[in-house]
Amino acid sequence: MTRVAVLGASGYTGGEVLRLLLAHPAVEVVQATSGQFAGKRLDYPHPSLRGMSALRFVPHEALEPCDVLMSCLPQGGLIERWARVRELASRVIDLSADFRLDPTDHERWYKKHPRPTDVPEFTYALPEWTASQLPGARYVAVPGCMAHASLLGILPLVCAGLVKPELVVDAKTGSSGGGATPALSSHHPERASALRCYRPVGHRHTGELENIVERLTGTRPSVHFSATAVPSVRGILSTVHCFAARPIVDENEPLRAIATAYREKPFVRLIRPNTSASPFPEPGPLQGTNYCDLAVDVDPDRNRIVVNVAIDNLVKGAAGTAVHALNLMLGRPETEGLGFRGLHPI
Amino acid sequence: MTRVAVLGASGYTGGEVLRLLLAHPAVEVVQATSGQFAGKRLDYPHPSLRGMSALRFVPHEALEPCDVLMSCLPQGGLIERWARVRELASRVIDLSADFRLDPTDHERWYKKHPRPTDVPEFTYALPEWTASQLPGARYVAVPGCMAHASLLGILPLVCAGLVKPELVVDAKTGSSGGGATPALSSHHPERASALRCYRPVGHRHTGELENIVERLTGTRPSVHFSATAVPSVRGILSTVHCFAARPIVDENEPLRAIATAYREKPFVRLIRPNTSASPFPEPGPLQGTNYCDLAVDVDPDRNRIVVNVAIDNLVKGAAGTAVHALNLMLGRPETEGLGFRGLHPI
Amino acid sequence: MTRVAVLGASGYTGGEVLRLLLAHPAVEVVQATSGQFAGKRLDYPHPSLRGMSALRFVPHEALEPCDVLMSCLPQGGLIERWARVRELASRVIDLSADFRLDPTDHERWYKKHPRPTDVPEFTYALPEWTASQLPGARYVAVPGCMAHASLLGILPLVCAGLVKPELVVDAKTGSSGGGATPALSSHHPERASALRCYRPVGHRHTGELENIVERLTGTRPSVHFSATAVPSVRGILSTVHCFAARPIVDENEPLRAIATAYREKPFVRLIRPNTSASPFPEPGPLQGTNYCDLAVDVDPDRNRIVVNVAIDNLVKGAAGTAVHALNLMLGRPETEGLGFRGLHPI
Amino acid sequence: MTRVAVLGASGYTGGEVLRLLLAHPAVEVVQATSGQFAGKRLDYPHPSLRGMSALRFVPHEALEPCDVLMSCLPQGGLIERWARVRELASRVIDLSADFRLDPTDHERWYKKHPRPTDVPEFTYALPEWTASQLPGARYVAVPGCMAHASLLGILPLVCAGLVKPELVVDAKTGSSGGGATPALSSHHPERASALRCYRPVGHRHTGELENIVERLTGTRPSVHFSATAVPSVRGILSTVHCFAARPIVDENEPLRAIATAYREKPFVRLIRPNTSASPFPEPGPLQGTNYCDLAVDVDPDRNRIVVNVAIDNLVKGAAGTAVHALNLMLGRPETEGLGFRGLHPI
Repeated sequence: MTRVAVLGASGYTGGEVLRLLLAHPAVEVVQATSGQFAGKRLDYPHPSLRGMSALRFVPHEALEPCDVLMSCLPQGGLIERWARVRELASRVIDLSADFRLDPTDHERWYKKHPRPTDVPEFTYALPEWTASQLPGARYVAVPGCMAHASLLGILPLVCAGLVKPELVVDAKTGSSGGGATPALSSHHPERASALRCYRPVGHRHTGELENIVERLTGTRPSVHFSATAVPSVRGILSTVHCFAARPIVDENEPLRAIATAYREKPFVRLIRPNTSASPFPEPGPLQGTNYCDLAVDVDPDRNRIVVNVAIDNLVKGAAGTAVHALNLMLGRPETEGLGFRGLHPI
Repeated sequence: MTRVAVLGASGYTGGEVLRLLLAHPAVEVVQATSGQFAGKRLDYPHPSLRGMSALRFVPHEALEPCDVLMSCLPQGGLIERWARVRELASRVIDLSADFRLDPTDHERWYKKHPRPTDVPEFTYALPEWTASQLPGARYVAVPGCMAHASLLGILPLVCAGLVKPELVVDAKTGSSGGGATPALSSHHPERASALRCYRPVGHRHTGELENIVERLTGTRPSVHFSATAVPSVRGILSTVHCFAARPIVDENEPLRAIATAYREKPFVRLIRPNTSASPFPEPGPLQGTNYCDLAVDVDPDRNRIVVNVAIDNLVKGAAGTAVHALNLMLGRPETEGLGFRGLHPI
Repeated sequence: MTRVAVLGASGYTGGEVLRLLLAHPAVEVVQATSGQFAGKRLDYPHPSLRGMSALRFVPHEALEPCDVLMSCLPQGGLIERWARVRELASRVIDLSADFRLDPTDHERWYKKHPRPTDVPEFTYALPEWTASQLPGARYVAVPGCMAHASLLGILPLVCAGLVKPELVVDAKTGSSGGGATPALSSHHPERASALRCYRPVGHRHTGELENIVERLTGTRPSVHFSATAVPSVRGILSTVHCFAARPIVDENEPLRAIATAYREKPFVRLIRPNTSASPFPEPGPLQGTNYCDLAVDVDPDRNRIVVNVAIDNLVKGAAGTAVHALNLMLGRPETEGLGFRGLHPI
Repeated sequence: MTRVAVLGASGYTGGEVLRLLLAHPAVEVVQATSGQFAGKRLDYPHPSLRGMSALRFVPHEALEPCDVLMSCLPQGGLIERWARVRELASRVIDLSADFRLDPTDHERWYKKHPRPTDVPEFTYALPEWTASQLPGARYVAVPGCMAHASLLGILPLVCAGLVKPELVVDAKTGSSGGGATPALSSHHPERASALRCYRPVGHRHTGELENIVERLTGTRPSVHFSATAVPSVRGILSTVHCFAARPIVDENEPLRAIATAYREKPFVRLIRPNTSASPFPEPGPLQGTNYCDLAVDVDPDRNRIVVNVAIDNLVKGAAGTAVHALNLMLGRPETEGLGFRGLHPI
């Protein structure tokens, strides 16, 4: 059994990490930290853990050595504790943006990185694209949720040379991506009917998308990213509007490129025409799962290729990918502990 | 492996039965029938089954012999086919009301039962109360969803003699209980904001509650039942208003009675004060699970005891109980295939 | 024009009071106070006021004399300022519970009333029942929202002597009743799927219902009140379960009693059978209106009479009744400024 | 009083037309037709009309001469009846796509127009842009709801020459746009959590946008349009991604262009920075109103200009614009009967 501790475990990604790890056959959760809930049982803030564990939260400072540490601290929390944390665990998986971007991009979108020389030690965990780097990785950075969904749509087409490096990404997201801390904009009467493009320009995932596409393909694209809040709790739908690099002759070429990219990938499901009563990628039935559903459509008259990508922001977009990376790091079966396939209707 | 066929498998309870059985380690799903979707793959109407099975629906008439048959046909469908179905499987689990009530009550709330002598062959599957009858049962009737939730709140107090046999049950339900067939009242623009007491009196579960409480306790109560549609898809909250049989001296007596009744019952969780940031039974985090959360409150000044009971209508209220009963019938571990503990937030 | 000031105008009831008064043909809004938003325009927190007024919030302390003062301060706020406020306006309408209950009940459900001798100066504004007292009233207390809805169902039957003085009231409410201040329980991810009986016993509206029914009918009933949060923002559905005082012979008697009680009342609409494709009182299509829809059902076998009452908690349950009372106090047409009839679908 | 008849008045746009006209001071509703509800009162399918009218639906065939006819028939319904309808009323306002597009575009996106020579008789009612043509218009075509919202964002920038004629329009819509007829995709359990890009390419409003922008500006753009269903009933948010025609030097230029375009337009509200606690255009608080809220954002590094436009699809996107056009045709005040300013929270 791999002994895993979870740092910052009382928020929403922390709750999902605990839910997955407590049911994982190869893992023992040895500690979970929380400032706010230290001393309380794990199920105190997380009703979905009722009856799963007798463990109680400890303060962040009480963290002891373990095999793997997963950090669900908010932005900046791991950087701040990095000197100490790296002494406690030989392997660390971070779910924040602390070590995702190259220092130059980090400075542009967040702030000057206080530990730029540590950044290259981290592997960016996009398992469908960087799986080969994970077995040996010591430190892993889990992608941002909207960046993750969008990359899964962008990369097959960019890699196949089918599209121009100028993309419009219109991402729609539920409220849980904003975390567990109350605020006026997430107060239920204000948020329940929200359909608001809360970040039309300047969203940080713009930087993550441009940085990672460049890192993985060699070409830095212009990503025109907007984020819209929709009236749901879990789930992201990222609509990636691409423009064909050359006139579209074969309308099935994009579909084939995507099918090829994800042929052996257990968590990505390409929805083909006429195979479903509801043939659109939707985050609803993906809630709780590590699956990504996607579909591609082509407008040959206007040379546009549209990829729609749906995930659960808290699982495939966070905790599930952390566990997926852990499986790869430990040499376990890729899907271990990630078998849940979602609910319908919901 | 027990070979199970599912009759009427394209609706919502059928989808949940398939979801649970396809992941069940001791079961092989051998056939699934559907009038509407015959020839289509199981995941055509059920996106949560994507990638789980290559099976296709067959027409009801194509049903072949199997070990256990689960029927998710609508009301009246199994009665109509009973002569043939009982030849195909030695064990049958029915999720409709066809064989739930004693013939007298059936006639009063549905219509004259065409096969009254077959009714006594069926065991009513309320596992927390009738588990001992299930191992040997050939034919099993799964309770109605709102009746099931309400019974779990009523029975401990009635059995302990704490309350009068006159109860007000105010049940709240999501839209999935109405099934998968579109209608004006379930058209999204009409139903999305619905908060409507659609059956203030005369709901059939009144009869089920009175019949089953009498069968299990010997006392026939008056149940004052109302059903209210709320703006959600899955889940039932049943608020059971009881009146103490004698003045309340010890406010903890109802809590103890309920705790005793469910002490060894893995799927019923009594929420005790101060153990949760959200100490109320709610169906939200129970979606997809076979769990029942309940809590009890006492107003000693007015002699009222209130039990709130939350379940997922499609799982604990239907498919999960069917699988729970199957486990007991087959001598398998009670919780096999029913381990999912739900999501939060959702 | 009557010059009206609104005290505590940045919350949800304050916003509705402003919305109604700014469009009222006989009223001029002269001041609106807010601690948090002093200096901001009225539409800063209230998007529905965009373009309606150039007024800005002033601090509570900046309040000047006016003809009528409406107070939307939270519980206790008006009591605290009463000595000063009564000097500023000859007529005051309070939307809190500060002066609703008799001092004995106030002490029991809130705390010892610091100004018990001022309480009798207030008229309880339940226009369908106390309209005759309003023209001469100087000080007016607007009912609590769930109490208001429930009283509209209870009073006709109690007054007609049709029901026992022991009632079960199961009220369902949206999130806006909790006010505009964020909290964990109203954080969107926590509240969006909530179906929780958050106050099964001990809700303060129990005391208001018992107090007011006694005041208006002479009989103090036992009210068994529970409040359940449902996944919506606006609206209350109160299900009043009554028991017939004597065996029900004429099933239409309750309907006639209610129809008689509200015959000349413009804001109460009794839904009769077969007059609507959706014949249930629902708060959805009442959003923004001062209307109350109700229906009555009878179970003669169990001697139960059920009244379902729907209102918008912020209008009929608060701001609309305040304006309704103002109209009666000023001798204006009863429905002035309250003509909006709601939206469907919504 | 202008005598208006409403053809096809039992659907959602019909209900909104009736709601607005029944409260309009210069209009008398003389007839309302319905196939399904002939003989029933207007409030039978439309609860928001309770108490507003004693009129009953008549069959389409019973239509008599009137001053103005408003047609809410589904696509193709008015074309089919045009020969007869034009004899009954000298002025006709159509809310379908029957006479919106030039015949060439109509054929491409719908089917060959059976009455191409009648099309030029119709004025396209986009009041902020075509108001001058409406006073004399006999026949008027109301824009499609998503096209309408998008045009309000596109036109100021195209007319000012600020953007390239290649636009990505990502429109999000509630379920009421699909009409009142039940279907599987709008069945509440299927639609409640829907976040689905149901028409990534090939949506008919693509054609309407290209046709109308060309008609009004002389330049035919390429419009890359996608439509996404979100979990709400009313409302559209159209996100218009534009690319600056030349490098952006002055970031305020787009804002000024839009402000200038709508300076005297009572129903379009440009949300400027720092004027609201919720500074994003959102359809929620616009429900029931004829207002359009919009905002503009600029990414100078990537040369993108984003306009977000929110409307209520059934009002500004249909019935409200019909009434707005009627006011202009009749020489009435532009805002008459359209004063409702929406609700918050909702």
